[in-house]
Amino acid sequence: MTIFLRLYSTFAFIVLIVTSSSLSSAPAAQALDVTKATIVDLTHPIDANTIYWPTETKTFQLDEVHKGVTERGFFYASYRFCSPEHGGTHVDAPFHFAERGQTTAVIPIDRLSGPAVVIDVSTKAAEDTDYTLSAQDVSDWEHAHGKIPDGAIVLLRTGWSSRWPNKRAYLGDDTPGDASNLHFPSYGPEAARLLVDRGVAVLGVDTASIDNGPSKDFLVHRIAGAANVVGLENVTNLDQLPATGAWAIVLPMKIAKGSGAPARAIAFVP
Amino acid sequence: MTIFLRLYSTFAFIVLIVTSSSLSSAPAAQALDVTKATIVDLTHPIDANTIYWPTETKTFQLDEVHKGVTERGFFYASYRFCSPEHGGTHVDAPFHFAERGQTTAVIPIDRLSGPAVVIDVSTKAAEDTDYTLSAQDVSDWEHAHGKIPDGAIVLLRTGWSSRWPNKRAYLGDDTPGDASNLHFPSYGPEAARLLVDRGVAVLGVDTASIDNGPSKDFLVHRIAGAANVVGLENVTNLDQLPATGAWAIVLPMKIAKGSGAPARAIAFVP
Repeated sequence: MTIFLRLYSTFAFIVLIVTSSSLSSAPAAQALDVTKATIVDLTHPIDANTIYWPTETKTFQLDEVHKGVTERGFFYASYRFCSPEHGGTHVDAPFHFAERGQTTAVIPIDRLSGPAVVIDVSTKAAEDTDYTLSAQDVSDWEHAHGKIPDGAIVLLRTGWSSRWPNKRAYLGDDTPGDASNLHFPSYGPEAARLLVDRGVAVLGVDTASIDNGPSKDFLVHRIAGAANVVGLENVTNLDQLPATGAWAIVLPMKIAKGSGAPARAIAFVP
Repeated sequence: MTIFLRLYSTFAFIVLIVTSSSLSSAPAAQALDVTKATIVDLTHPIDANTIYWPTETKTFQLDEVHKGVTERGFFYASYRFCSPEHGGTHVDAPFHFAERGQTTAVIPIDRLSGPAVVIDVSTKAAEDTDYTLSAQDVSDWEHAHGKIPDGAIVLLRTGWSSRWPNKRAYLGDDTPGDASNLHFPSYGPEAARLLVDRGVAVLGVDTASIDNGPSKDFLVHRIAGAANVVGLENVTNLDQLPATGAWAIVLPMKIAKGSGAPARAIAFVP
């Protein structure tokens, strides 16, 4: 009986250690078999309607090099293009707002693939165009779905992608060259700090910026950049993702020394 | 005993059916858990050294929009860039050589994610710079590793990526504007036809083209394009992949009506 009690108390002690350590660390990611998953493309196509920041004077341009039958008798088409790094569905490298932050090509590839955490504030954003995600919203999400895992790709759903490519509806103002009167929802600084503390890899959003429209000091960009957290802007199709359980992959053009790049973002949904 | 024999013959008959059907259809893809896989980046960075086709007059250019501390006191960097669609690690949309083929943005996303089939001809290419993959090479690979599955992303390994970014070593000639004297290995037309018959989604290679250097009629491009099979050129790190069992993802910039685009290609290795 004494031995039994000793064994029991040792067992209880081990259970206590295991339980407390599982509470203080991020939960293991749920297994996801890519061979059976459905793929959702989170990327807007890039064309003359692609939305850029209002101060951007030169937007996307596609120039024909050749299109038609060659002298050897077969069809051949080829183009060149010019583009800002920042516009359409694209990545902000940490360097965009942090002088010592990672540039586009050196973002570790492991940080561009991770469990998708979808936080839906579309109801609140419908009532307040400039809504910013609060730390309380993040806590509420964790209460419902569990702690946000290390390396997560957070995708903030505001519902704004349904306004694309209507520039005025999407940005709140379509005056060329003027970014002083923009209105759209995004992350708030306190939520960004909490998410950075969780070890997230990417802050993504279905609006034009990880700071909201009226922001002038771009605190969320600066908080993310300083922590080598990548931004992902102008995503779409977040309504096709579950709050948790999907796996996101964000692949920017591998521009050496870039501050960002057009990116293709997808999610595997089990 | 009679019942046992009847049961046994029924069982043998079922085994026969199952065996023959598994021989005539592609094998099911091996499960791959992304949460546990290692990621290999198959992409060269894009910079002033990026290799383009010799006839390309305007190569990659990155122009500074802003880099430094703003008047509001925080660091900010942003660039614009111009690039040919075809150069560096990039995708050939079927439309590149097929007038009715898919353009870049409309390639189904499911065809850009698939089991990686790595065919290694580096020994043969080391002896013959213009080596082309033969139908026999494909059959030999299948004899060793099983039938190439529907939707496969084929990655032809010639060893040429170790020559990058030495243009002369990589293309066989670095005379500007002259593509008449190129030498490097790639796919041959018969192998391309066999792979298209297998239902592959992507033909990838670690050289500048899915046709070899001396090709003038670009038959592999035309065979692929006509079948809406995507090309993937100038990949790297194929030495880090197994012949079979990895999963590849190829994500081009989503250029509407494009003939191709810079792409990021990765592989999940179990």
